[in-house]
Amino acid sequence: MIEHMMDRQLMISSLIEHAAQTYSDQEVVSRTCEGTIHRYGYAEALSRIKRLANMLKDYGVGEGDRVATVAWNTHRHFELYYAVSSIGAICHTINPRLGPQQVGYVLNHAEDKLVFFDITFTPLLAALREHAPTVERYIVMTDAAHAPADFPGGALVYEDELAARSDSFEWPIFDERTACGLCYTSGTTGDPKGVVYTHRSTVLMAYAGNSPEYVGLSSRDCVLPVVPMFHVNAWGVPYSAPMCGAKLVFPGPGMDGASLHEMMDKEKVTISLGVPTVWLNLLAYLEQSGARLDHMKMTLVGGAALSEQILRAFEEKYDVRVAQGWGMTEMSPLGTVNRPPAEREDLDDPAVLARRLKQGRCVPGVEMRIVSEAGKVLPWDGQSVGHLQVRGPWITGAYFRHPGDTLTADGWFDTGDVANIDPDGFMQITDRSKDVIKSGGEWISTIDIENAAMSHPDVAHAAVIAAQHPKWQERPLLLVVRRKGADPMAEDVRLFVKERVSRLAEPDAVEFIDEMPLGATGKVLKTELRKMFADYLLSA
Amino acid sequence: MIEHMMDRQLMISSLIEHAAQTYSDQEVVSRTCEGTIHRYGYAEALSRIKRLANMLKDYGVGEGDRVATVAWNTHRHFELYYAVSSIGAICHTINPRLGPQQVGYVLNHAEDKLVFFDITFTPLLAALREHAPTVERYIVMTDAAHAPADFPGGALVYEDELAARSDSFEWPIFDERTACGLCYTSGTTGDPKGVVYTHRSTVLMAYAGNSPEYVGLSSRDCVLPVVPMFHVNAWGVPYSAPMCGAKLVFPGPGMDGASLHEMMDKEKVTISLGVPTVWLNLLAYLEQSGARLDHMKMTLVGGAALSEQILRAFEEKYDVRVAQGWGMTEMSPLGTVNRPPAEREDLDDPAVLARRLKQGRCVPGVEMRIVSEAGKVLPWDGQSVGHLQVRGPWITGAYFRHPGDTLTADGWFDTGDVANIDPDGFMQITDRSKDVIKSGGEWISTIDIENAAMSHPDVAHAAVIAAQHPKWQERPLLLVVRRKGADPMAEDVRLFVKERVSRLAEPDAVEFIDEMPLGATGKVLKTELRKMFADYLLSA
Repeated sequence: MIEHMMDRQLMISSLIEHAAQTYSDQEVVSRTCEGTIHRYGYAEALSRIKRLANMLKDYGVGEGDRVATVAWNTHRHFELYYAVSSIGAICHTINPRLGPQQVGYVLNHAEDKLVFFDITFTPLLAALREHAPTVERYIVMTDAAHAPADFPGGALVYEDELAARSDSFEWPIFDERTACGLCYTSGTTGDPKGVVYTHRSTVLMAYAGNSPEYVGLSSRDCVLPVVPMFHVNAWGVPYSAPMCGAKLVFPGPGMDGASLHEMMDKEKVTISLGVPTVWLNLLAYLEQSGARLDHMKMTLVGGAALSEQILRAFEEKYDVRVAQGWGMTEMSPLGTVNRPPAEREDLDDPAVLARRLKQGRCVPGVEMRIVSEAGKVLPWDGQSVGHLQVRGPWITGAYFRHPGDTLTADGWFDTGDVANIDPDGFMQITDRSKDVIKSGGEWISTIDIENAAMSHPDVAHAAVIAAQHPKWQERPLLLVVRRKGADPMAEDVRLFVKERVSRLAEPDAVEFIDEMPLGATGKVLKTELRKMFADYLLSA
Repeated sequence: MIEHMMDRQLMISSLIEHAAQTYSDQEVVSRTCEGTIHRYGYAEALSRIKRLANMLKDYGVGEGDRVATVAWNTHRHFELYYAVSSIGAICHTINPRLGPQQVGYVLNHAEDKLVFFDITFTPLLAALREHAPTVERYIVMTDAAHAPADFPGGALVYEDELAARSDSFEWPIFDERTACGLCYTSGTTGDPKGVVYTHRSTVLMAYAGNSPEYVGLSSRDCVLPVVPMFHVNAWGVPYSAPMCGAKLVFPGPGMDGASLHEMMDKEKVTISLGVPTVWLNLLAYLEQSGARLDHMKMTLVGGAALSEQILRAFEEKYDVRVAQGWGMTEMSPLGTVNRPPAEREDLDDPAVLARRLKQGRCVPGVEMRIVSEAGKVLPWDGQSVGHLQVRGPWITGAYFRHPGDTLTADGWFDTGDVANIDPDGFMQITDRSKDVIKSGGEWISTIDIENAAMSHPDVAHAAVIAAQHPKWQERPLLLVVRRKGADPMAEDVRLFVKERVSRLAEPDAVEFIDEMPLGATGKVLKTELRKMFADYLLSA
């Protein structure tokens, strides 16, 4: 084939080079782990990234080597993203919330060569050191004054290392399909699996999300990713912001409402991205303090479903538009976005509210389909519910060092969700595939029942699992944790829920439990509930 | 290399499939050559595109074959874009304004197999038929009622062909580097050269331009490309609009101010793209009729430099923001965009005005540099002027069937322009390389002198060329066409210009000519002027 167009590879290094040249003074502002505020322009960021690249080379990091980070969202973590990937190595972002055992597992599975960590995580890494034989060096991401004195075996000091090196570095050009990043999923069962990002997948997703139909940044924006850089690359913001010259604000370890609000207010943040829990904290802070969000135009909520409460609070009380995003670690993660329309809508209109709470429309490049149990592709009619499967250039084809098939026989990735898609392309997740209740050929979403139960004043927590039924194979069993001091009757709760869900979804029985079993990331462990109620039988 | 991400190719077919699924009812509205208004949704567009694909296959169009279009911006031309490229053939868009000789040349050089044409161009194609031996079939883009009865050798009728075919078609998947389009440049010297676009280059450019930092469409927009689809793919709008679900309005043959305004008003167009000439016509119409632009938010001006007159008229009189774009046929064409800032600025501030009239900042993916005569890369200081060179995945590496080097030795494309770039990344073209005057080691831009001369009340047209000078090698010679009825003195014009340009750029002499030699696209033929004044000598 004759190459009529220039054969230029999509390289992560090109994003920061573009920002440093074109938006040299646009600011990157960070709250550091030392408690200070750090700020510089993209040109200075690039200069430090090149020092870091020289350091990595000096310590023998070669193409394909893994370099781990255990760090908050700061300028130093940002520098690592670019330096590690741009020399052809793989930036392995570790989620410190996984706990010592899983962090140890992923360090060893990835065979990380270097580990960079924030001072916050010194105890975690010190404890793991003897269990991570592949790690040659630890580098603490601070200056000499703040470095821990007693790290076992010693740790290099980030700022000293950078100061000792040249800021001149020529980026190599290589195949855009080369791995640039690694992020392990925290599955509820089995060992974590490593998702490998490539230069191509990363640059393409940054391009695709940048339409105002989806996230849509520009140099007129100031963006604050609350979503951690150890959680699917902070949803790509460290790439999409430099691409379009947006000002970038990193919250560091200050994830509480007051700290976030301070950064949003002082730095005039216009768009911020995070999970519902973070927004609930911020909203609680605003409520208590009476503070406002004077500059914010939009929040993007992802990681878990957007609730009516968060939507209404931002839009009705604080005049901030709310977008919902959906994706997965395996999707880099951008799959769909439900971007608010230009004009304000009446959230009291049930049709409007229902649409706003859906997961949204596909970002171009991502294809989706819903498939029945029998493998039939279902229509986009807003009614049919099926297994949600996706395809696209930034969706995982194979996990890191993981044998076995990742995709369906015809090349799609099964998300593990069940969903419907309406004729306007809005997708709505109705349940996890493994949680859905199969009742006489029909599928029942557990989420609706749980939401209904949790709106009962005496219910602290609720979860629905399938119980065996002699006629319908499976029927919903509602498990409830009572609110402290309350003592509702099971039948009262059942009747309360019955009024709020479809006839098919009415729970057959309600049982009380003392405590809800939760996983590391706060999700209900339905596997545990199923074990507890394995022998539970409903009557016809 | 292990493929960790799915190996999905960037395909043009995926754009229209995405639009048809996700934005099925979003409208594509066209003024047709028959004088009617046609409208349908993206889903119906796809259905007709598949009929067209079946037709192309039936007539033996295979991978890599060229299919020519001689057509206005309409839904049928849009259908051809997608059907031809998506089956793996090459859509060769011919500029009918080139005139019969050049149209004949490109038909033969491309060896087009089929030719689709609008009824407007029946005489042109009828006259060329006997000179285009490779063309197997002609298809007139209309229905039976409007088809020409007397086309020599006969022509197939587009609507009849579509009606006769199935709307079921499975798009092939192939290497994204496959050619999808062909557009010949209309150079002022030599034969036209064919620029070949690929699926990869086309999809990447559509992604890149879609940030609100550049063009930035969304499903909340209605976009009207005035720039013709025979002129560098209407700057990519036929791809970027479906990608983000924007409503698309095609003006057909109605390029006059009244017709454009009617479409903009009735269809609630929010963004429109075109060359300065078109905007001058529209502005003249608005002035005469008192009409307003109630829905328009932004116009993008490209193809030639944005003038202060157009900028002020849109922003100050009609409350429409103005962006400037710069590119070339060889650049697909998106190179830089100067997007207006969010807040209104005072155009009476000379610094603001100067920045707004620059060509803008690089779209991410495009790299640019300015290079001195000696090959030294010059700084982005807003002062240094050099040859503008570009690089990127949607920039030509090799012309169609054209031997010889297209790029510099180190892989850049020389634009033929000279420019400066300021520290904020804004590029400003100061002249064409071949027109710039080299005076004692300094470069003098002819554009500034010409603009100054044309502001003289007695000057109808002006052009500056280099004349030989015994001391400075070259000095500016100003050639002037007098305004009808006026009879200015050469020295008066010289003194008038002298006050308005830098000391270095003061013209040494002024000569009057009866008529300005112009090329097919209205550009001054400086080659002709240089011939006319080849022996002109200035004195020291």
